[in-house]
Amino acid sequence: MTRANLWGAFLSLLLFSATFLVWETRFVFFNITALVVVIFGTVATAFLAFPFHQLQNACSVALNSYRPFGVKPQGIIAILLDLAMRSRREGILSLQDKTGVTLSFLQNGLDVLVDGYSENEMYEILSTESSFFRLRRQHSERVFRILGKTAPAFGVAGSVIGLIGMLAGIQEASVIFQTIPMALVSTLYGLILSNLFLLPVAENIVSRTQEELLLQKIILEGILAIKKEQNPLRLEKRLCAFLSPQERQAAQADFQDRKQHYIQFLRTQKEATQG
Amino acid sequence: MTRANLWGAFLSLLLFSATFLVWETRFVFFNITALVVVIFGTVATAFLAFPFHQLQNACSVALNSYRPFGVKPQGIIAILLDLAMRSRREGILSLQDKTGVTLSFLQNGLDVLVDGYSENEMYEILSTESSFFRLRRQHSERVFRILGKTAPAFGVAGSVIGLIGMLAGIQEASVIFQTIPMALVSTLYGLILSNLFLLPVAENIVSRTQEELLLQKIILEGILAIKKEQNPLRLEKRLCAFLSPQERQAAQADFQDRKQHYIQFLRTQKEATQG
Amino acid sequence: MTRANLWGAFLSLLLFSATFLVWETRFVFFNITALVVVIFGTVATAFLAFPFHQLQNACSVALNSYRPFGVKPQGIIAILLDLAMRSRREGILSLQDKTGVTLSFLQNGLDVLVDGYSENEMYEILSTESSFFRLRRQHSERVFRILGKTAPAFGVAGSVIGLIGMLAGIQEASVIFQTIPMALVSTLYGLILSNLFLLPVAENIVSRTQEELLLQKIILEGILAIKKEQNPLRLEKRLCAFLSPQERQAAQADFQDRKQHYIQFLRTQKEATQG
Amino acid sequence: MTRANLWGAFLSLLLFSATFLVWETRFVFFNITALVVVIFGTVATAFLAFPFHQLQNACSVALNSYRPFGVKPQGIIAILLDLAMRSRREGILSLQDKTGVTLSFLQNGLDVLVDGYSENEMYEILSTESSFFRLRRQHSERVFRILGKTAPAFGVAGSVIGLIGMLAGIQEASVIFQTIPMALVSTLYGLILSNLFLLPVAENIVSRTQEELLLQKIILEGILAIKKEQNPLRLEKRLCAFLSPQERQAAQADFQDRKQHYIQFLRTQKEATQG
Amino acid sequence: MTRANLWGAFLSLLLFSATFLVWETRFVFFNITALVVVIFGTVATAFLAFPFHQLQNACSVALNSYRPFGVKPQGIIAILLDLAMRSRREGILSLQDKTGVTLSFLQNGLDVLVDGYSENEMYEILSTESSFFRLRRQHSERVFRILGKTAPAFGVAGSVIGLIGMLAGIQEASVIFQTIPMALVSTLYGLILSNLFLLPVAENIVSRTQEELLLQKIILEGILAIKKEQNPLRLEKRLCAFLSPQERQAAQADFQDRKQHYIQFLRTQKEATQG
Repeated sequence: MTRANLWGAFLSLLLFSATFLVWETRFVFFNITALVVVIFGTVATAFLAFPFHQLQNACSVALNSYRPFGVKPQGIIAILLDLAMRSRREGILSLQDKTGVTLSFLQNGLDVLVDGYSENEMYEILSTESSFFRLRRQHSERVFRILGKTAPAFGVAGSVIGLIGMLAGIQEASVIFQTIPMALVSTLYGLILSNLFLLPVAENIVSRTQEELLLQKIILEGILAIKKEQNPLRLEKRLCAFLSPQERQAAQADFQDRKQHYIQFLRTQKEATQG
Repeated sequence: MTRANLWGAFLSLLLFSATFLVWETRFVFFNITALVVVIFGTVATAFLAFPFHQLQNACSVALNSYRPFGVKPQGIIAILLDLAMRSRREGILSLQDKTGVTLSFLQNGLDVLVDGYSENEMYEILSTESSFFRLRRQHSERVFRILGKTAPAFGVAGSVIGLIGMLAGIQEASVIFQTIPMALVSTLYGLILSNLFLLPVAENIVSRTQEELLLQKIILEGILAIKKEQNPLRLEKRLCAFLSPQERQAAQADFQDRKQHYIQFLRTQKEATQG
Repeated sequence: MTRANLWGAFLSLLLFSATFLVWETRFVFFNITALVVVIFGTVATAFLAFPFHQLQNACSVALNSYRPFGVKPQGIIAILLDLAMRSRREGILSLQDKTGVTLSFLQNGLDVLVDGYSENEMYEILSTESSFFRLRRQHSERVFRILGKTAPAFGVAGSVIGLIGMLAGIQEASVIFQTIPMALVSTLYGLILSNLFLLPVAENIVSRTQEELLLQKIILEGILAIKKEQNPLRLEKRLCAFLSPQERQAAQADFQDRKQHYIQFLRTQKEATQG
Repeated sequence: MTRANLWGAFLSLLLFSATFLVWETRFVFFNITALVVVIFGTVATAFLAFPFHQLQNACSVALNSYRPFGVKPQGIIAILLDLAMRSRREGILSLQDKTGVTLSFLQNGLDVLVDGYSENEMYEILSTESSFFRLRRQHSERVFRILGKTAPAFGVAGSVIGLIGMLAGIQEASVIFQTIPMALVSTLYGLILSNLFLLPVAENIVSRTQEELLLQKIILEGILAIKKEQNPLRLEKRLCAFLSPQERQAAQADFQDRKQHYIQFLRTQKEATQG
Repeated sequence: MTRANLWGAFLSLLLFSATFLVWETRFVFFNITALVVVIFGTVATAFLAFPFHQLQNACSVALNSYRPFGVKPQGIIAILLDLAMRSRREGILSLQDKTGVTLSFLQNGLDVLVDGYSENEMYEILSTESSFFRLRRQHSERVFRILGKTAPAFGVAGSVIGLIGMLAGIQEASVIFQTIPMALVSTLYGLILSNLFLLPVAENIVSRTQEELLLQKIILEGILAIKKEQNPLRLEKRLCAFLSPQERQAAQADFQDRKQHYIQFLRTQKEATQG
């Protein structure tokens, strides 16, 4: 989550909650019973529907998906091109030195590359890892999405509980006036819990996962190309196909320098061989 | 969006909003608090659910998808047939001259063609580009669809907030009469924001994307056929399979001229070879 | 749509609308404002969500899908068997004579067959045509389905508009009594527009499209078999696999005659060769 | 549908409808107008959305899916093993005798086997038949599912019609008291028609179809194995993979006898060859 | 279900139900008629929609999915590595000894391995078993999910029944006061039955099934690698791709010992061969 997201969310939530607090009777909006019905109904569902380790996992994935995520496709392509050129100049074993490589998927890919697996095995190992990464993330997203669908139902249940309590003791008008707001507050809590918390978290996990899967796809393609000793200049073309047109132009300008160096190197080498 | 769409939307919105303004009490329909709840609830969800650059991207895609889009499948097929014939007459390198080619996907395809990649590599580069184009568009559509589902919930939340405010201060009848309309106005805002703005935008992105993907599919097929030096007359048959029966007839009549020229050229060449 | 459908729909709609007209106050059910909100809200959505040519196309597809559709799988199989036998007796070029062939897909298939494309090319051209036919139909269905989901929301919006107009002028009881029915009438219009018009049309497009796609699949299979010069007796077996068990029995009895003729011809030919 | 299903459904429906009949005012629950709105609204939708022959077909499929269905996977595997052994002992043509084979798919499979089609052709014919069987069933399920989603909407429409009729004649209290129950009865009819009739029928068609598709998959696998003259002992292993662990154990015990006989036969034959 | 799940569910249900019991009029929440409508409506749907043996099966699967499930992917990988090493040292037939193997899928896989099927056959047998295991589980999940969607509808139906009973006898105020709570209680029962019982059970079946399918995938991969006599050290790398990064590190540390032993064995063997 970038600073822009934080400020945007903060300001709009501020304006949103202002609509509560302008009412003179703003204390009505805080109601423990309603909160208990909605929160603990949803929590009970969570414990009944998902094994505990999946709930833990979902929470840590949710937290992680709100941390800023610095790695961009262009950066990964630059790293892969550097690796491809280094591999061409100094041999595949030179890739054992993983300085500057922070992504665990890329580290893994380099390990597999250096260990000398066949192309097919490399593809299977890395794509298995990638597809199970996606599966684990889908589990986490599913937890929040299911709970996000359940919360409004408990909001309504809380309202019904309140209304029943009121209607059963209908003789006293004062009870009615205390209960109807409580009943509606519960519905409100359910809607807010679902629409401002659980569903956005699920959606954010989806977004983050898609960004990471794009990186993994680029890395997989790049690692296989290094294995196949593909021409780095052609590799650039292939990897840039993963970018949007704007990003592609920026990236290609950015890579110009590296490519010049590499072409220089190729020429020197050619002369050395011929000389 | 064509002129027909603009006029149609404008007139029906005019008639639709007339149903508001005929009421003597039309000022009730403008309510700042309700607007704040619905708009900023939805905006907060957007900031909590999607990274900022995705929101930016979704907005620019939405704007773009309402700009008129002049390129038609028939036009692209005509261009591809011209390119195929030129390639036959003057060699593949003559395609470096990209005058009149405005679509970036076609430009890219010609680059790949001229650079001498193998057929498989061409297919992979171009289909990767196409599938990530679709993925980026799906992200944008998703933003509007998710927010379109969320807006009515905030409409209801706004109504509940209003009703609670009212019911908590139930002693004064005048407060009730001010609040109930405000409550219902919020629901109305949620419904309109969702059904007249967010969901149609999502739907329009889908329509536009499908049109562009059709063009990309035709281009991919055509570029590969040029690479394979397929007979342009057969290429026409293949590409016309992407059209509807009506478009196909119009297109085939349209291409008659070009084909005559080409057949003429083939004959001349044959005679030259035999002569 | 068959006569049975017309009568069934007519009678049940008659009974359905009788429930309106039995009320002494039946004039309440006709309300211009409610009609405007529901119709023009939905129309505005249509113009905002879909390009104009897609709306046109959807309407013409909808009309077409209610026209009676005479072609049955059995009939197509009979035609294909005749073509296969003729091709065996008189050569593939005899198929240029397309008398009695009304389906444009079959005409196209025969063109491709006579033009001497390879099997793979034939498969690609015809299956591309078939899959884009399905895509265009799905677009049309989508238009009606999306609008069918939107119409009830505008029905509710119309009710809310009416209620707000009423509640803002709550001092006069007479206004209330005029508005509440108007409000509910709008909801009713939305439900009827969606459930008796838009969604059935979408569903009917689906049904018709599936029937036509079945025919196209049978034709594709048959044309390829003719190309491969497959034995017509075996072709019959393969094509009959597309039919339901009842249809299959009827069809096989029906084809007995043709097969006898063909076997007769084979014998004569064999004797001629041997003689 | 087994006897257990019948009794279970009967008893729970009895208890369910008891909750209607305990009311002194039980006659309110029978309301012709509400019934007409819900039933004929749904029927009109059916006639507008689906071609008549599809409605007929859906009804007959629905009826069939409630008839008891005696064939079990184990039984089919036993038959296939017998056929495989007979084919090994007496040659493939001995399978022309189809005594005891009641399933039309198996009869068809044996026909194809005896007619001497190639393996690929057999696979195509039988899997085409199977996939179009599934498609036809999905059409029938779709009819009931779509109507099941429509019925509650007509229930609500009926309630709205009732309420409008009442509210338009609001001067007389007696009319109100007659109408509100009628209005709610319509909603109730819609819910019951959908949840106790249309949706369970759709679901039951799904269940039955899946059972039959499992059988067809086993038969397809078995027929192909007989064609390939696969060892019946290995065929048993492959077919038992379609069963649940419990069924598999029961089946394997059951097949012990047959296998003994077959092994006996093999030994005799071997001795005869060697002798 | 772990102890953490049990405690979590228990405590949150306690807090949730406390919101019922704090009301003085708590006896209103227990209502036999409402219970009968919701429970037996749902049960009738179950009997009408699913064959009896599928209901039985769904119940036993549901019960099983709440039993603790001790087997972890790491454990399975350890067992498979041991088996691979043993197979290398002592030959494939040594795997007939299945001591310590409790999972029926692994037992089956070893049977197939020892019986000497070809790689393709092994893959087909085991993946058929796995995919039909998933299908059976999906049937069970479907039962609970469909009923979970139906229960709230019967809750509403129960409320409508109650309201009709009340409104038909509207003359007596006492009847009204008895009925409205009863009506709402039914809605509450429907919501709770669905959201705290049926849907969580469906979700829990999904979670458990995914865990078991992961194990089956690992076993399938491992068994095939043993068949192919793949190097156990490489097998470890491949199987660890199924784990999350954290699990992978733990597992790899754990396997260090085994690998040392194996490498030791390889060296000894090599020396023996060379010596």
